[in-house]
Amino acid sequence: MSIYDKLKSMNISLSKPDAPAAVFLPYVQIGNLLFVSGHIAKKQGRPWAGKVGREIGREEAVLAARSVAIDLLNTMHAATGDLERVKSMVKLLVLVNSDISFTEQHIVANGASEFLIEVFGDAGKHARSAFGVAQIPLGSCVEIELIAELR
Amino acid sequence: MSIYDKLKSMNISLSKPDAPAAVFLPYVQIGNLLFVSGHIAKKQGRPWAGKVGREIGREEAVLAARSVAIDLLNTMHAATGDLERVKSMVKLLVLVNSDISFTEQHIVANGASEFLIEVFGDAGKHARSAFGVAQIPLGSCVEIELIAELR
Amino acid sequence: MSIYDKLKSMNISLSKPDAPAAVFLPYVQIGNLLFVSGHIAKKQGRPWAGKVGREIGREEAVLAARSVAIDLLNTMHAATGDLERVKSMVKLLVLVNSDISFTEQHIVANGASEFLIEVFGDAGKHARSAFGVAQIPLGSCVEIELIAELR
Repeated sequence: MSIYDKLKSMNISLSKPDAPAAVFLPYVQIGNLLFVSGHIAKKQGRPWAGKVGREIGREEAVLAARSVAIDLLNTMHAATGDLERVKSMVKLLVLVNSDISFTEQHIVANGASEFLIEVFGDAGKHARSAFGVAQIPLGSCVEIELIAELR
Repeated sequence: MSIYDKLKSMNISLSKPDAPAAVFLPYVQIGNLLFVSGHIAKKQGRPWAGKVGREIGREEAVLAARSVAIDLLNTMHAATGDLERVKSMVKLLVLVNSDISFTEQHIVANGASEFLIEVFGDAGKHARSAFGVAQIPLGSCVEIELIAELR
Repeated sequence: MSIYDKLKSMNISLSKPDAPAAVFLPYVQIGNLLFVSGHIAKKQGRPWAGKVGREIGREEAVLAARSVAIDLLNTMHAATGDLERVKSMVKLLVLVNSDISFTEQHIVANGASEFLIEVFGDAGKHARSAFGVAQIPLGSCVEIELIAELR
């Protein structure tokens, strides 16, 4: 099944990515590496705001991480013109806007990691770092940066 | 206008970069990628210390981020011998020493991003992640790491 | 002296790395770059937990960072089959689970940096960013991500 058919079967439709909220590019390609800027979690077009472990529970944060992964796909689609050109997800940097008592950033990050593997199969597998940060732009609960390898 | 003329017109003179404060290299080049270590904000040679959103206001933090970008140029000049060899800024990682209530890391990061674009034009454009951290070495208010592509 | 003899002389024996605690790969190789996932500090197989500057003192955190570097070697040994294939450590990202008053992340990070240089000599030198984060998965006090260049 193609990646686009797979997305359709998951009821996910890609859309034009939002413009960055500040002075930077959504992605830069150098050779076959695609560096994708940190994307913050959004809900109905607005920042999905709140500290995980306080205003946002673990399961909601997992959904937020998954939604960021969808937005990363939107950006990668815009970058490549065809997601089949993605040879592998190389590395994710997953930032969780964490209350200092919250220690399950790895579970939150799985929301993005499992989604990418569901869509891309082996090509979706990646190295990763996940940790808790003090804040994220606009108070968003999750931010994810990605490096992908293109064919 | 050359990059050095541009810097002169902005009244910015490059200087020998400070030695790293610990056991690491200021940069490493692999192929055409230059990995520049995290540089902390300094003011008159000392750490520009304070938490943004508490001791340091947003506008001061923007200036601090701009000053880090100048220090990154000092290091890139030392690395390349000639800043004209910088083909593009690939990616910035902008860490803001944030009070947990401060959510404008993207505005702070613009202090560095806008400066790089002012100096380098299109070659200064980059992908980016910005977020708030719990602390930065020596209490500095901003730290920035950079990947650049060389010709 | 070979890297393995050097490790033996330091009474360090490599072991099979632990499986990742979540849905990600311990490393991904793209061309000659090896991207190693964030590894959290462990003590006797369990998370080395606590906030640095509160439950964990600076010197203990230095040891924790050194222990993460050993675990990174375990993973690089598994990735390469032979650590002599490591041409250079390119860049470390050192995250310290910091009390907001703790400002010596660079000293903590030296625990990893000095170890890598002791084992690999010049090939162990690297660029680096170190900073304090709000939390780390499972409450660990230190997490380190690494990029290495292979021959």
